[in-house]
Amino acid sequence: MSSALPVGVFDSGIGGLTVLAALQQRLPHERFLYLGDTARLPYGTKTAATVGRYAQQAVQALVNRGVKAVVVACNTAAAAALPALAAGNPGVPLLGVIEPGAAAAVAATRSGRIAVLATEGTVRGGAYQQAIHRLLPTAKVSALPATLFVALAEEGWTDNEVAQAAARRYLQPLFARPEAIPDVLVLGCTHFPPLAGAIRAAVGDGVCIVDSAITTAQALAGLLGARGLDAGRTGGDCRFLVTDGAERFARVGPVFLGRVIPPDAIERIDL
Amino acid sequence: MSSALPVGVFDSGIGGLTVLAALQQRLPHERFLYLGDTARLPYGTKTAATVGRYAQQAVQALVNRGVKAVVVACNTAAAAALPALAAGNPGVPLLGVIEPGAAAAVAATRSGRIAVLATEGTVRGGAYQQAIHRLLPTAKVSALPATLFVALAEEGWTDNEVAQAAARRYLQPLFARPEAIPDVLVLGCTHFPPLAGAIRAAVGDGVCIVDSAITTAQALAGLLGARGLDAGRTGGDCRFLVTDGAERFARVGPVFLGRVIPPDAIERIDL
Repeated sequence: MSSALPVGVFDSGIGGLTVLAALQQRLPHERFLYLGDTARLPYGTKTAATVGRYAQQAVQALVNRGVKAVVVACNTAAAAALPALAAGNPGVPLLGVIEPGAAAAVAATRSGRIAVLATEGTVRGGAYQQAIHRLLPTAKVSALPATLFVALAEEGWTDNEVAQAAARRYLQPLFARPEAIPDVLVLGCTHFPPLAGAIRAAVGDGVCIVDSAITTAQALAGLLGARGLDAGRTGGDCRFLVTDGAERFARVGPVFLGRVIPPDAIERIDL
Repeated sequence: MSSALPVGVFDSGIGGLTVLAALQQRLPHERFLYLGDTARLPYGTKTAATVGRYAQQAVQALVNRGVKAVVVACNTAAAAALPALAAGNPGVPLLGVIEPGAAAAVAATRSGRIAVLATEGTVRGGAYQQAIHRLLPTAKVSALPATLFVALAEEGWTDNEVAQAAARRYLQPLFARPEAIPDVLVLGCTHFPPLAGAIRAAVGDGVCIVDSAITTAQALAGLLGARGLDAGRTGGDCRFLVTDGAERFARVGPVFLGRVIPPDAIERIDL
């Protein structure tokens, strides 16, 4: 395995660009190859079996191109399929976003009451709940699906009155009983960080909002260092593979990545 | 071709159940075989090439099962691919939802100003605009995408404060200039009829809201009659094929179909 290879980053589509942004900020000299399965997004409402099948095709495509590690940036795919993906691809280190997010939540909580906001699939699979309980068996975890946030973020409606009404609708039931209010809220979907402002307005200042992208970047830095796979002082480039049109990816992507995506860095592939 | 065969109804997923409901109401003795490509929904944000490929696979699956006609109930698929689907499947009559919707809009307008609310893909392809102009060359058509309505309908949030805020956000710009206000609004996506209440509240009483499902049902009745393919007094059953989990389809489907879907009527297939 060559340290000069890029790190593969896989997501169901566009949301994983929030993770890529955190990875590039923490590891500015690494090269990245991002694969967004934009033809088949969203994964969050699909069954675990379908998500697992799609995820294996995507990881295989990244491995075929040559990568030194793969970050499964899609919470739904990581929750549904990370062990199977690791077993099916023994030659390349794989890292998900669930374990780093759970670790950050456990580090931040004082009361032990942690809320997880995620897609239907991630909530149903229970991966966050299990990862948190492995680290803090006494934790009281509430997980709730916030499917509409995905569409809101893709529409670029991250802090208007529609986003604010949706955030209130999803979150206020969680904060209805004063004795059960969580002190940590995990954003368990890569689409949700752009909505942090609307979410903060709905939950108030007393809650720590955890975005697993930052702790995933720390975990990747640790993994590359431990295996002697750091890029050193070279590289820094990033290319993008998408399974559907590049135009929409280039148009909607900056909401999540925080910068422009050059059209000539995007390549369409079939999975 | 036997008149005892069912009519195939194809949609990207769940929204086409609004069309199926209208078909069953108009033609209660017909048998129906509904195929929802739930693993790959939504089509509305995908490119025309990808939508065309998926639609051909779906129509082929219906033809292989034996159907006497196919209704392409998905506006996005009808807009992107109806001519290609008809050319690729000469043995079975195909009917889309765009032409019937355009005909209903032209019949209803007095001012000639028609607005079409649809998905990104349908708006971009221009099929509604073209179909309306073929019937009424002087029509002034404004088409605008309302992507979030798809997620709102699937969440079952059809008339709460989030749906109302989204409807105002999308529609008020259309109604900002009194001299340019449309007198007909076409719901150019099968996901939108459940939101008709919120849409009506945003546009007021002066606009005729056209749902193409009803005129599509009339067109199907005409087509079957003309070819001697009426079911007569038999049948009336309906089966459902889905490409992802039956559980979500059975849970979300009633928002669109208006009745319960028996789990044993749903079969999972691969495309």
